[in-house]
Amino acid sequence: MNLTKHVSLNINVRGSGQSATLAINDRCKGLQCDGKKIYNFGLGQSPFPVPTPVVNALKLYAHEKDYLPSKGLPALREAVAGFHKEKDKVDVSPEGVLVGPGSKELMFLLQLVYYGEIIVPAPCWVSYVPQARILGKKVRLIHTTYEEKWHMTASRLTELLEEEHDIYRPRILVLNYPGNPDGLTYTKDELKDIADVARKYEIILLSDEIYGQLNHKGEHVSVARFYPEGTILSSGLSKWCGAGGWRLGTFSFPKNLDWLLEAMASVASETYTSVSAPIQYAAVHAFRGGVAIERYLWHARRILSTLGNICQKILVDAGLRVHPPEGGFYLLLDFTPLAEKLAQRGIKDSVTLCERLLQETGVAVLPGAVFERPPEELTARLSYVNFNGANALATSETYPIHQELPEDFIMRTCEDTITGVKIIAKWVS
Amino acid sequence: MNLTKHVSLNINVRGSGQSATLAINDRCKGLQCDGKKIYNFGLGQSPFPVPTPVVNALKLYAHEKDYLPSKGLPALREAVAGFHKEKDKVDVSPEGVLVGPGSKELMFLLQLVYYGEIIVPAPCWVSYVPQARILGKKVRLIHTTYEEKWHMTASRLTELLEEEHDIYRPRILVLNYPGNPDGLTYTKDELKDIADVARKYEIILLSDEIYGQLNHKGEHVSVARFYPEGTILSSGLSKWCGAGGWRLGTFSFPKNLDWLLEAMASVASETYTSVSAPIQYAAVHAFRGGVAIERYLWHARRILSTLGNICQKILVDAGLRVHPPEGGFYLLLDFTPLAEKLAQRGIKDSVTLCERLLQETGVAVLPGAVFERPPEELTARLSYVNFNGANALATSETYPIHQELPEDFIMRTCEDTITGVKIIAKWVS
Repeated sequence: MNLTKHVSLNINVRGSGQSATLAINDRCKGLQCDGKKIYNFGLGQSPFPVPTPVVNALKLYAHEKDYLPSKGLPALREAVAGFHKEKDKVDVSPEGVLVGPGSKELMFLLQLVYYGEIIVPAPCWVSYVPQARILGKKVRLIHTTYEEKWHMTASRLTELLEEEHDIYRPRILVLNYPGNPDGLTYTKDELKDIADVARKYEIILLSDEIYGQLNHKGEHVSVARFYPEGTILSSGLSKWCGAGGWRLGTFSFPKNLDWLLEAMASVASETYTSVSAPIQYAAVHAFRGGVAIERYLWHARRILSTLGNICQKILVDAGLRVHPPEGGFYLLLDFTPLAEKLAQRGIKDSVTLCERLLQETGVAVLPGAVFERPPEELTARLSYVNFNGANALATSETYPIHQELPEDFIMRTCEDTITGVKIIAKWVS
Repeated sequence: MNLTKHVSLNINVRGSGQSATLAINDRCKGLQCDGKKIYNFGLGQSPFPVPTPVVNALKLYAHEKDYLPSKGLPALREAVAGFHKEKDKVDVSPEGVLVGPGSKELMFLLQLVYYGEIIVPAPCWVSYVPQARILGKKVRLIHTTYEEKWHMTASRLTELLEEEHDIYRPRILVLNYPGNPDGLTYTKDELKDIADVARKYEIILLSDEIYGQLNHKGEHVSVARFYPEGTILSSGLSKWCGAGGWRLGTFSFPKNLDWLLEAMASVASETYTSVSAPIQYAAVHAFRGGVAIERYLWHARRILSTLGNICQKILVDAGLRVHPPEGGFYLLLDFTPLAEKLAQRGIKDSVTLCERLLQETGVAVLPGAVFERPPEELTARLSYVNFNGANALATSETYPIHQELPEDFIMRTCEDTITGVKIIAKWVS
């Protein structure tokens, strides 16, 4: 008797491994256990602790044990709507909010319930395409370039939409800004132009703004302002609230997309049921915000902006192409100017690039290929979060709030980050 | 511009509503808001609070914010393995444990990744079939009878398997005991016989034992003892630990089914990522158990057994067919002996039966149809949990531990439950 003889797996699932961002983390931990010094720029996790008032709220509601409605705790749906009204100036109603165990799960449900095409500008977040593959669907990618600041333009979008000559083709365009893996964001005018195209072709926008509150200038603009009737606004606790491991994401729908909300809630009720009750009660406090959370965000932005820009300069000086960061905690490194030198070392694609970098120096970054870039393009994502966020926040608080952080601050609080980046610079020289 | 004109939904999802057990709860809340007195026997939620040491653990770990491994926190996987070793005498290894946001989600992932047939004895839990429908799959049902104590026998299973003349057909059989919606469990001999058939035909068993610790005598036996190499053991915090709203379920796989575990973990990493970190840390304490939790379980069982048996007697005296409960907190009511009388009132199927009962008396039970029984069969599930569980536990603690609870205990602590059941008895007379 050997049940393994009859391995019976869905062909869409066969051979798929772990999500790339999670896998790199496990790999780094393994190497660390072997005693190797690792600079883990792989995982995209906020370095900062969950703000104290939010942790205290979780303690307060630890006894909450009832199944909550699949769409979410009413008070939380209200808080999320209020958050988008205040922060994004978008008129979200509580009835339009869907709460899920991470926006990743919500994205999966959206792909599951929606019958139509998903369009994603690439580089893009690692899970859109694997999710589509699991569901036996295809994603249409729009490849952007370094010169375009990795932005999809309205004209590129128009081009793709015109290709089909099919105005009624059901389509969702996924936008993500500040962006993972590029750390860049769109200007108001760019968003307006994209919104105009979306309206003209009647496509739905899924606007993934989970890094919105980590716009380094605190000036995030949502595309939902310019296309409210067709935009689903995605957010969650993972990035700006430092609570990735808590697993809470939100989608906010306009009234006329409630058929999508209802279908997703129906599938939710047959799968994860609802998000963990104590977490939802605590999240109410996060989305309601307040002075302590605003101060937390203010310091987080100042630290990330300062650190990101220092890293960018080191890498540019070493000959890489990297745009100065505008939000979140990623840099997309483009090694193309060094292609010849790297080719002499046998490095001709992004996977080899990252593998060799990790093996030869202990620096872990993720290859552009996992962000749907062409395999031979020498790009990689660097997540500059390998520092003690609690310590950095506490130290930042000792500096006057409207002053720039001095370079020695970064050297003291983010030493490993700078060292790791310098190792990359040295490795390519 | 009207995006609603182009409603584009996956045909497998179109028109599906909310999960039946969640929907009845919303309906009852609505009626209560209208000022109607409702006896909600619909939702299958434990009436008891989460044990104090487990709530305290959640407070202690409220600050935990890291993404955890998709398979689960290592300490939790170890605790779950230890739990099954001690409670079920099944040799589960920590590497064989998968933690998910509810066993419902894990069941969905199993159906998603497995390429093969799912066989389920009916009456069965409400979500197996809707999950299959969402995935465009079919479930094969084995209809059992009142006379069989709603049990699937080894010979019924053999019959179905022989029908196909295909020994290599990939199949999973789902067993659930103590059962939802019947509150009954299998004997050791019945399980041995089923295990023998499963081994002979090389089918996988998914044994849903989430009510195992609520076996009223504390004598739960797992089928995994008799077919360890082919059984996936399903458990979680929702029922015995009173933490349904926390959303944590577990699957434990034998070594040679690790291909299923890996495929599910891979999909998990692209969807919900991992279960909420603070919840997982707290769950370690729940699965490790201890004196306080044993005492909690002991009282919970005594209350449920006493109450369930009183309800059963009232209903039998009123002419219904109901088996005395053996575990969990459900009774499956069979109104068949009263069919003629009910037909005179225009009641000829289970949906009408429950709708009329709710409208005429305010008593909410779920129709047999949602548990995959034939529509015209006059069955319904009664969940006897509409009482204050914290109060009942505290009161039970004032009675010596090896004494039966007196009837006046039930009248004092579970008055609404008894009143509701008496209303059913009166309604059919």
